[in-house]
Amino acid sequence: MQADKLVGHYAVIFVSQRRDGDHGYGETAARMVELAAQQDGYLGIASSRDGNGFGITVSYWRDLEAIKQWREQVEHQAARERGRRDWYQSMQLQIAKIERAYDFTAQ
Amino acid sequence: MQADKLVGHYAVIFVSQRRDGDHGYGETAARMVELAAQQDGYLGIASSRDGNGFGITVSYWRDLEAIKQWREQVEHQAARERGRRDWYQSMQLQIAKIERAYDFTAQ
Repeated sequence: MQADKLVGHYAVIFVSQRRDGDHGYGETAARMVELAAQQDGYLGIASSRDGNGFGITVSYWRDLEAIKQWREQVEHQAARERGRRDWYQSMQLQIAKIERAYDFTAQ
Repeated sequence: MQADKLVGHYAVIFVSQRRDGDHGYGETAARMVELAAQQDGYLGIASSRDGNGFGITVSYWRDLEAIKQWREQVEHQAARERGRRDWYQSMQLQIAKIERAYDFTAQ
């Protein structure tokens, strides 16, 4: 998405350390990306996880109401429950309003 | 850092796709993490890059003035110039004010 379309909207920053083993994580993670994209007010997502299982996912949303609706989505609630129980050693989440945005692509 | 200490402060979200090859990147990246931590108003950093060279770094700052000072730090300016020229295929950057923050650590 273009930088100027993000200003005034929201980023949800999810920082997490995975535990060892998959335990159904890969399948559910892919399903959550698919489901999020179907939510009203979804603007985009970026995700990276390194070889030590440390990952950051940033999802972008129109407003706090869209974030609330995604938080209340039933399948997503079940996935978060499994995340706390089976997949993550630790998690940090921040909800932040985007004030400035830039992008650059090499020619 | 604790979640409640982030609310009201800023996240700088840096999303990037690396080019192939190191070209001095690793050394400079480590140096930037070290330098950032010495800046006034620095609150913390989290960084992940996957096996395809796609990475997200989130740094946390007290206020926009602290972000501006880091942006103007001379060695950091030189690194950004090299980043555009040698290291990154594409970059997106957002500056966002944290409204809510949560954390979880498994027992």
